Amino acid sequence: MSLKASHAIKHCTALLEKVGVPERNAQSTARAIVISDVWGNASHGVMRLPFYLKRITMGGVNPEAELNVVSERGAIVGLDGQDGLGHWQLWEAASIGVQKAKEFGISLVSVKNSSHCGALGVYLYPALDAGQIALIFTNGPAVMPAVGGNAPLLSTSPIAAGIPAKPPMIIDLSTSAVARGKIAAAAKSGGTIPDGWAVDKEGKTITDAKEALMGMLAPLGGAKGFALGLMVESLSAGISGGALSTEVPDMFNPDDDTKPQGISHTVITIDPSDLGDSASYDDFNKLAGNIKKTGGRIPGVKRAHPEEVEDHEITVAEAVIKDLNDWSAKLGLPNFS
Amino acid sequence: MSLKASHAIKHCTALLEKVGVPERNAQSTARAIVISDVWGNASHGVMRLPFYLKRITMGGVNPEAELNVVSERGAIVGLDGQDGLGHWQLWEAASIGVQKAKEFGISLVSVKNSSHCGALGVYLYPALDAGQIALIFTNGPAVMPAVGGNAPLLSTSPIAAGIPAKPPMIIDLSTSAVARGKIAAAAKSGGTIPDGWAVDKEGKTITDAKEALMGMLAPLGGAKGFALGLMVESLSAGISGGALSTEVPDMFNPDDDTKPQGISHTVITIDPSDLGDSASYDDFNKLAGNIKKTGGRIPGVKRAHPEEVEDHEITVAEAVIKDLNDWSAKLGLPNFS
Repeated sequence: MSLKASHAIKHCTALLEKVGVPERNAQSTARAIVISDVWGNASHGVMRLPFYLKRITMGGVNPEAELNVVSERGAIVGLDGQDGLGHWQLWEAASIGVQKAKEFGISLVSVKNSSHCGALGVYLYPALDAGQIALIFTNGPAVMPAVGGNAPLLSTSPIAAGIPAKPPMIIDLSTSAVARGKIAAAAKSGGTIPDGWAVDKEGKTITDAKEALMGMLAPLGGAKGFALGLMVESLSAGISGGALSTEVPDMFNPDDDTKPQGISHTVITIDPSDLGDSASYDDFNKLAGNIKKTGGRIPGVKRAHPEEVEDHEITVAEAVIKDLNDWSAKLGLPNFS
Repeated sequence: MSLKASHAIKHCTALLEKVGVPERNAQSTARAIVISDVWGNASHGVMRLPFYLKRITMGGVNPEAELNVVSERGAIVGLDGQDGLGHWQLWEAASIGVQKAKEFGISLVSVKNSSHCGALGVYLYPALDAGQIALIFTNGPAVMPAVGGNAPLLSTSPIAAGIPAKPPMIIDLSTSAVARGKIAAAAKSGGTIPDGWAVDKEGKTITDAKEALMGMLAPLGGAKGFALGLMVESLSAGISGGALSTEVPDMFNPDDDTKPQGISHTVITIDPSDLGDSASYDDFNKLAGNIKKTGGRIPGVKRAHPEEVEDHEITVAEAVIKDLNDWSAKLGLPNFS
């Protein structure tokens, strides 16, 4: 069904507050969740909220977590997320990155002991609004084997990059052939998935979406995708000294609801105004213009700004609305919709 | 034919000095070229030297170029390569990056107005030797269209990443389906290339290697490869304010031998010892160990260290030896081999 983003943000915030998340963090998280739906990326939108709520009530996510600085030297900051929600924590990390990049030209902020953060592209906006580039890396449960490997080793290993052209170019992709969220969305509606998205231990393709969530994802283009995924894992879990993907519990596995995910996020923020004066921005704009001129599509050009999504309409599957209504009833709130 | 790396380095250095490159830069460049052959990546090895020599004598490369700081603030340094050879310039940029990362935890060094630098993975070693991560990006002549685009817009847009595990993990890949160097090597030996490496303006596959050098390369996995390529272009040409790939002359096109390439290189260097103490290194080693344990291949694990290649044997195609002997005769040096 269709509903207004402002309504969804308000109701998601209320649900999160009811399970103990402080207002400010609940709002930040709700907004990051609903933006995904606005962007047409339902697999990272409100369909995930029932899972987050369950994990909070079961102990897998700490609603009262704070984001503490554990190390800071020069342009590099290490944070501990205390098993809190990934959304508000990564937004805050990205905001710290902007301040540090203003000071040093480039900065790196890494969060360990965090949780799933939804769509990675969301967190590019603090930098983009400041005319900065952001590169963001995160990990998650292991679902992707090494080339020639017989067990999952890396998460879908997503990369996001925001380039401050006008309008900004938003790069946001997993280094697996497809994002796991797409399989999760297919599983939610009880469907099947195309050949080549998921494989079993013998390398055979899996087409049942639910079965695929327990299988392995194929890396993008084979060895190159695995190498890029390894870079992402090293820059998120590796650099933070946090849990490797092989140690991260699955948010879709009810048996893991009591276990913190220990996910790591890393944001590298770059202030291009330090190099070549305005020439960088001229190049970014020229690049975007050239894509258009040759008939190509500028990545992310249609995405609404996270702080201007209130008036947009989102479409939510009936099964998800039912879950959210059940949670609302349980927590003493009116129906979600 | 087979010859010793130490011999090839010495002779390449002498050839470069003969056309006016100062000894130190000639040595650094020769070493970077020969390493490629040692690594089995002949397309970026000594087969390129005749092209570099020709471009130097024709004015497309400035042998006496210096590497000047044009901007410096905090952890970010902008350099101007004055149309010099890319190899020694990127090695020096990477070395500056290491010092800056020691000071600030992370650094960014960008070179504009440079030239082709060979295999990108070479320049990871200054950081790896210091226990640091390096991420390197460069651009080149436009050979890859946007998704749905009818003209080349991006170079093969390579990414290199070095992870300081023991042994180090070396990630080095183009975001095109294959590296252009592979097509150049096939063209050199007069061969054909497989379907899917290169396309014409209507998107049809090209199998003639020489024709393919004038055609367009397909991005890795379609839209994702193009998005990654766009990130690379933004981080190299974009951030430096240098020439976009659409403005970069082709080193394989004799008509362009007088035109400086204006290539940009960027190195991001990260000192992981600032985050989580030794936990980062433990994670990197565990990650490498897990790849091995599951039967996978650790990227770059067999690569010799650039400063320990002297005793290795390299194999050089007869056609390349002939070119190098012609250049040696012309410059008053004994035969290359």
